[in-house]
Amino acid sequence: MNIPRLSCPRVVIVGGGFAGIALAKQLSKQEVQVVLLDKHNYHTFQPLLYQVSTGGLEPDSIAYPLRKILKNFPNILFRLAHVEAIDVANNKVITNIGDLSYNYLVVASGSETNFYGNTTIAENSMVMKTIPQSLDLRSLILENFEDALLTSDLQERDKLMNFVIVGAGPTGVELAGALAEIKKGILPKDYPDLDTRRAQINLVQSGDSILKDMSEKASIKAEAFLESLGVNVWKNLRVTHYDGSLATTNTDVTFETATLIWTAGVKGATIKGLDAASFVTKGNRVVVDEFNAVKGLDNVFAIGDIAHMVTAQQPKGYPMMAQPAIQQGEQLGKNLVRMLAGKPMHPFKYKDKGAMATVGRNKAVVDLKRWKFQGVFAWFVWMFVHLFFLIGFRNRAVVFVNWVYNYIRFDREARLIIRPFKKRHNTKQGNH
Amino acid sequence: MNIPRLSCPRVVIVGGGFAGIALAKQLSKQEVQVVLLDKHNYHTFQPLLYQVSTGGLEPDSIAYPLRKILKNFPNILFRLAHVEAIDVANNKVITNIGDLSYNYLVVASGSETNFYGNTTIAENSMVMKTIPQSLDLRSLILENFEDALLTSDLQERDKLMNFVIVGAGPTGVELAGALAEIKKGILPKDYPDLDTRRAQINLVQSGDSILKDMSEKASIKAEAFLESLGVNVWKNLRVTHYDGSLATTNTDVTFETATLIWTAGVKGATIKGLDAASFVTKGNRVVVDEFNAVKGLDNVFAIGDIAHMVTAQQPKGYPMMAQPAIQQGEQLGKNLVRMLAGKPMHPFKYKDKGAMATVGRNKAVVDLKRWKFQGVFAWFVWMFVHLFFLIGFRNRAVVFVNWVYNYIRFDREARLIIRPFKKRHNTKQGNH
Repeated sequence: MNIPRLSCPRVVIVGGGFAGIALAKQLSKQEVQVVLLDKHNYHTFQPLLYQVSTGGLEPDSIAYPLRKILKNFPNILFRLAHVEAIDVANNKVITNIGDLSYNYLVVASGSETNFYGNTTIAENSMVMKTIPQSLDLRSLILENFEDALLTSDLQERDKLMNFVIVGAGPTGVELAGALAEIKKGILPKDYPDLDTRRAQINLVQSGDSILKDMSEKASIKAEAFLESLGVNVWKNLRVTHYDGSLATTNTDVTFETATLIWTAGVKGATIKGLDAASFVTKGNRVVVDEFNAVKGLDNVFAIGDIAHMVTAQQPKGYPMMAQPAIQQGEQLGKNLVRMLAGKPMHPFKYKDKGAMATVGRNKAVVDLKRWKFQGVFAWFVWMFVHLFFLIGFRNRAVVFVNWVYNYIRFDREARLIIRPFKKRHNTKQGNH
Repeated sequence: MNIPRLSCPRVVIVGGGFAGIALAKQLSKQEVQVVLLDKHNYHTFQPLLYQVSTGGLEPDSIAYPLRKILKNFPNILFRLAHVEAIDVANNKVITNIGDLSYNYLVVASGSETNFYGNTTIAENSMVMKTIPQSLDLRSLILENFEDALLTSDLQERDKLMNFVIVGAGPTGVELAGALAEIKKGILPKDYPDLDTRRAQINLVQSGDSILKDMSEKASIKAEAFLESLGVNVWKNLRVTHYDGSLATTNTDVTFETATLIWTAGVKGATIKGLDAASFVTKGNRVVVDEFNAVKGLDNVFAIGDIAHMVTAQQPKGYPMMAQPAIQQGEQLGKNLVRMLAGKPMHPFKYKDKGAMATVGRNKAVVDLKRWKFQGVFAWFVWMFVHLFFLIGFRNRAVVFVNWVYNYIRFDREARLIIRPFKKRHNTKQGNH
């Protein structure tokens, strides 16, 4: 991997998401050599992936070069690498570009889609955890409308215009709302020769409420917002099988659909060597103590989505979201500095900053500790907070320009099929 | 293709580039049914592709949805289709989504890269005529630097950091300048553990001047600009063979390079059925008369790059550039309206608006009819003209934000490997 061995300790961080970046920043200017590994050369702002999928934002404005984040920190090196395994016995990380030894290892590998073992859904559904996946979904949605135009078979046409989103967490709700706005504002103009009123957006939730991690008020209001936009909200319904054409459920409800989007679950993105039953718990998360140390190992830590930390404050573990990840990254950074200085570490304390989700234009729900509100103001708060947390001035400026434009013009101009999804395997490389 | 046959004549346009769009707009609100076919669902602003390749702009801001361009024109339909052949005997277009008959056909299929029969170069070089190709090049450039970090073999490292651009037209010059600025401004910060001074940018030109279609003053000044940026400009040199690792030339000069970018030629993107020797001339262009009618056919026309029109004004045919394409599209639109009204058509007259190219920050060359100038002011003119010709307010705003940011910060933030180029065939779909 061509990394010099210095006399100071080496901290290897696996993953440049919210947690990994927050940690790396804390370790800058310290007497440690930090090596950050990620399979992408950019940090992804995951909360806005659904806007990439629905043509509201360009992918490049929610991604930020990892090397740029780190460029002012001479003690931090970056390597573009897939981590294949961790050898905890020999303090070594095994990657596609070679092995790397560590004094301290921090796993911040995040989460991946959880299909709960359902292979038909895993094989045939779309997911939205990375930028390429979001772009694939964008292409598929647009290709489906292009194909709907070509068929005279009404059943086939309806199937192409029927969208089923499984899972009514923030991602599912936001995606359903965005698709409903596209149906209303863009399709009739883009496809004058297609009866786009027949397009359906279905949001399927296994429990009896949507946004179940938010307040009841937020849940009820978000559902009302979705219904006002024409989304079919299905509760207490579980999709059990999907062959790419027909989705069946635990009841007699079925959906004929060419597009099933699975946002119903995530699990820890475990890594070989740290995936034994002694390390992981429910949802593939690595069990850590209140200092983010992995159970049974004294120089391996886990932070963010991958870490399962049980505290009196949070007996079920922290939610797999940006805020706990950022705060754990910062806290572990400070703790490592303390530890290296021979001082005791401080236990993690989570500051709950609330939760929010947006359904559409002027429609969002916000839960703060002492104040829960919905509607236009919530929507502005949602936008402001997301702009604030985006990394980089240029990204903020470009996202802001897009949002202002989309708001004024009821438009989403990034409806581009740059890389076709359906025909990808038939076209010659670089030829589409 | 599911297109209704109306009583008015049907005009089929193949290609949504500058020429096709200009024509379609002229035919809006006329008593004709227009069907525009393109293999992409967007119009590409080709003059800025090199900025996508070099991380200065995001791809979505130089692309514009074709359906959006056409949405206010109820007599114009769009179909996403690859045109496979033209059956001039039966007035039919054959595509991957079915056949389509026409009363009038206008071929505006543009141009493609011309390797002049050199298969080793065709197989191993990068080209930059479409957005996916530009993104592939962006990925490859960045992947090469990531790989250069990993090797201790100095020869291999130099090869990964050695760029050879063949062809010193505007695209080659602009790309070379952008790479030189990246070498100077971005690489040392992004790759502190790599001696990026060893990166080389070579611009190879077979003739004895660069920008040969521009004035001598522009050519000389552009070369001086390139040299001030550290680009190696090679003249009177032809690359004759490239195996993906070593490029050989017509002299004893050779280049060890992992990246050869071919911008040395274009040819008409001919279509089967219109590619016979009776229709095409040098450079695969379809011969047309001064009304853009294809020789020997009374209801088939060709406009833009694909059309070869010889006039007293331009005995060698018009250059394969945006301006002749736009003007021919507009003129043919007016002529078709005249023809359908039983009036005589007017011959094409080209208004030469000049030519320009940019080399880098504050460095551009502009040739107007009566005034040729270079330097800072030329650079501002170049930017203003390109912003003006971009389609859509949002695209202009986003490009403007990027340019202002890049100018102030000496930066290019879209240095993202969204879809790896090198490893594309090894990674699972949607998994990178």
